[in-house]
Amino acid sequence: MTTMETSTAARGADLVIDLNADLGEGFGRWRLTDDDALLSIVSSANVACGFHGGDPSTMRRVCELAAERGVAIGAQVSYRDLAGFGRRAMDVPPRELADEIAYQIGALEVFARAAGSRVRYVKPHGALYNRAVHDEEQAAAVAEGVRLAAAEPLPVLGLPGSRLHHAARAAGLPVVTEAFADRAYTAAATLVPRGTPGAVVSDPDTVVSRALAIARDRAVDSIEGDRLSVKVRSLCLHGDTPGAAALARRVRDELATAGVRVEAFA
Amino acid sequence: MTTMETSTAARGADLVIDLNADLGEGFGRWRLTDDDALLSIVSSANVACGFHGGDPSTMRRVCELAAERGVAIGAQVSYRDLAGFGRRAMDVPPRELADEIAYQIGALEVFARAAGSRVRYVKPHGALYNRAVHDEEQAAAVAEGVRLAAAEPLPVLGLPGSRLHHAARAAGLPVVTEAFADRAYTAAATLVPRGTPGAVVSDPDTVVSRALAIARDRAVDSIEGDRLSVKVRSLCLHGDTPGAAALARRVRDELATAGVRVEAFA
Amino acid sequence: MTTMETSTAARGADLVIDLNADLGEGFGRWRLTDDDALLSIVSSANVACGFHGGDPSTMRRVCELAAERGVAIGAQVSYRDLAGFGRRAMDVPPRELADEIAYQIGALEVFARAAGSRVRYVKPHGALYNRAVHDEEQAAAVAEGVRLAAAEPLPVLGLPGSRLHHAARAAGLPVVTEAFADRAYTAAATLVPRGTPGAVVSDPDTVVSRALAIARDRAVDSIEGDRLSVKVRSLCLHGDTPGAAALARRVRDELATAGVRVEAFA
Amino acid sequence: MTTMETSTAARGADLVIDLNADLGEGFGRWRLTDDDALLSIVSSANVACGFHGGDPSTMRRVCELAAERGVAIGAQVSYRDLAGFGRRAMDVPPRELADEIAYQIGALEVFARAAGSRVRYVKPHGALYNRAVHDEEQAAAVAEGVRLAAAEPLPVLGLPGSRLHHAARAAGLPVVTEAFADRAYTAAATLVPRGTPGAVVSDPDTVVSRALAIARDRAVDSIEGDRLSVKVRSLCLHGDTPGAAALARRVRDELATAGVRVEAFA
Repeated sequence: MTTMETSTAARGADLVIDLNADLGEGFGRWRLTDDDALLSIVSSANVACGFHGGDPSTMRRVCELAAERGVAIGAQVSYRDLAGFGRRAMDVPPRELADEIAYQIGALEVFARAAGSRVRYVKPHGALYNRAVHDEEQAAAVAEGVRLAAAEPLPVLGLPGSRLHHAARAAGLPVVTEAFADRAYTAAATLVPRGTPGAVVSDPDTVVSRALAIARDRAVDSIEGDRLSVKVRSLCLHGDTPGAAALARRVRDELATAGVRVEAFA
Repeated sequence: MTTMETSTAARGADLVIDLNADLGEGFGRWRLTDDDALLSIVSSANVACGFHGGDPSTMRRVCELAAERGVAIGAQVSYRDLAGFGRRAMDVPPRELADEIAYQIGALEVFARAAGSRVRYVKPHGALYNRAVHDEEQAAAVAEGVRLAAAEPLPVLGLPGSRLHHAARAAGLPVVTEAFADRAYTAAATLVPRGTPGAVVSDPDTVVSRALAIARDRAVDSIEGDRLSVKVRSLCLHGDTPGAAALARRVRDELATAGVRVEAFA
Repeated sequence: MTTMETSTAARGADLVIDLNADLGEGFGRWRLTDDDALLSIVSSANVACGFHGGDPSTMRRVCELAAERGVAIGAQVSYRDLAGFGRRAMDVPPRELADEIAYQIGALEVFARAAGSRVRYVKPHGALYNRAVHDEEQAAAVAEGVRLAAAEPLPVLGLPGSRLHHAARAAGLPVVTEAFADRAYTAAATLVPRGTPGAVVSDPDTVVSRALAIARDRAVDSIEGDRLSVKVRSLCLHGDTPGAAALARRVRDELATAGVRVEAFA
Repeated sequence: MTTMETSTAARGADLVIDLNADLGEGFGRWRLTDDDALLSIVSSANVACGFHGGDPSTMRRVCELAAERGVAIGAQVSYRDLAGFGRRAMDVPPRELADEIAYQIGALEVFARAAGSRVRYVKPHGALYNRAVHDEEQAAAVAEGVRLAAAEPLPVLGLPGSRLHHAARAAGLPVVTEAFADRAYTAAATLVPRGTPGAVVSDPDTVVSRALAIARDRAVDSIEGDRLSVKVRSLCLHGDTPGAAALARRVRDELATAGVRVEAFA
């Protein structure tokens, strides 16, 4: 049984998981995520900060709602790429990238504070997330941006074993691990790349049962059928597809039934 | 003699003035202001925050240099208009405008703090500055954005008697008045609109002598030759024209010779 | 009975109307208009050109579908304002505005030609449309942009009696008039400004009957109940609200039943 | 002696070269290239089309000046990246990239035509240029964008032997080869990557003599001192550094003295 590394301390018999989702990903006239519904379900909100989505008024609204409902606010930082929704990897020089990350966190912090909360963590979005799994230089730049932006070290949410987590630790930042109930895993416990057949799990029942397995059993089946150990503190739910909020609600309800407490890590 | 209102308390016999200039107004590959030279001259830096100019790396560099040299950092907030350099008035709904202002201040605060300083004041840029002189709704939106962004009330730098200053006071924010040595004034002590012949004073000697008059004598001649009382706490120097830094240096030197101390208000 | 001016020649007993709608108003990841459905209904497609919405791939797709279905392609030109969806009036200097208009038309022409068609007309979007009704300078700038962009004079679609139409005629461009079935008219046959109670007609049955009245009877009731003569060549249908396509389909069907032929003007 | 492939037919004893430079690379308030001076020197103008620089009014002005002086207008197409000046490689999906290329060419065509000329060729900018040297997929996307945009096949200006040129030929487009007088070449006749010591030749005399060698002798020394055969139809001059116009003028004058005719390829 392959084991995903986790940075969170053992939590004994107590079953607890964080649910995180990308929110506030509209821009101006355009809406994408069902922010209101999801903010009743998740414990952590990855709020878009304007570089791939997320205009200031949306950021403010999401922060107000999150603060009101006790949802932790995280900065979902991205490449500067509205046209590509942050999904196109970019060779941004590390210093520039660090500064762009810091800029986004600072902008969000204003709305988190105004709502009576704070930015509690950082999670890269889209192509930056994927690239920071493997790319040492960009991973270090993200960590440097987080360090630059915050007086106290902010946790970085990401994949277990990622370059991003290595870089974050090296920069003195806490790391928090996450898994995906709707993504297939290889036998080596890495994500099957999008585009590969079976990479995305779309059947709702399967997503729910995988979510339960991850949260309760700390395990999930690989695409080849092996049982993988998955000791993560957070589960990522997707919010930008039709039916996303309903599926997220089902996951949350099943976790409750199974005695798993949903609680933010931050 | 017409009197410009000033919000700063009388400072006795002690002659003191703040020199402010717009800085960091490049974007990416493009440079505009001679930041390094001007940061040796001014006491307050109006740092562009990304909406009309000012990429994150430039913001960081200007903040670092300002902090190092004891120059106060201000957020030079703008309409979202890179293509027009923030010089095109926009009918932005007040709530949106307030949120865009707050966003910019928050982004700059990150770099000010990382440099060991803080954002000390706010000054609108270009078309927003001009519009907030007369437009009550947008003036209130700017004030609301400032209030939203900062835990403690940040001073708003602007024209004496402007709607912006009225709105700032109404929002509980301190106001700081400024004058322009290179702009002509009407008999009513308002700026002669750009485009009107004589609106901009371009002769360096005249600019220097007007700067001296404002700082030392608290007075300046109107375009019609009347002597106007000008009791302001700050003098705005322009930094985006060839020879700007040299002219600013002359002003600073003449002020020193005349016994006027240059000191930030914030 | 007040009469809206029309520039189209009398068409005898033959009842014909053009149906136009704004299309392709998504951007990257974001979708707004139901382009596929509406392209089966309208005779003219106002295609967003990238300044308020409309990325290149969307422009291409809409042009291909329009060409395939015999729908006329028009350039829906806008202020450069993705964040505000082109709904915020901007004081763009006339020369700059003309050049921005021409740029957008040229970009769309590429996709229209590649699809085997051409850009057949131009219609300003949002705040630019509204401003060009009254603002002589901006109206002239739009006309200049159209003139600049096209070898042959392209028709300008707009409100009867608007400054835009005056300017277009002065620039040697044909003009085409349009009316709105879902907007209230004053006794003077101008649009009741949005924000005024009753400005927007939302009841589907009323919209359908007003559309019929405009297309068949060349008349519509003003907000005060007067019968207005409305001799327009085109009827604008909105495509960016839920149910928009279904309502547009009903209008089209009722027009067919009433013997009104739907045909592009261009 | 290694030979750079050239696609241009032998031109007999007649010595002729094209001089191309990147122009119009300002944006709004920001200026970069000395367009006026360079348009008196070069025979081909690579005009920025708005994605890395180049606002519509600048595009128009450069096209007008180019047409007036008989300089060929080329579309300098780029990734959509104003903040990075198109210097950051991006993983743009091929279809999107092709559409973005076509969009830019179409926009420029409007200003070229309005000035009485046409877009005569296409050259990718910055990171896209570099990537299209090696990346088959992006090279094909650029070629597809060019094909899409133009009724007649437009020549593609680029490095001899590049993937871009292979893809352009495969798409039925003519190719034109260029060399750089201020860049070092490897023994394999490829450019020494920027960042490598000696990659950029900054001594003006050396640049001039290398330009002469390329244009007259069809050869240049590699960084290791080998003589390379360089049979190109165009020589790229840089226009975005201080002294660039003066250096370009020297190159042009020396070519004249040496009996090399400067003439556009298009």
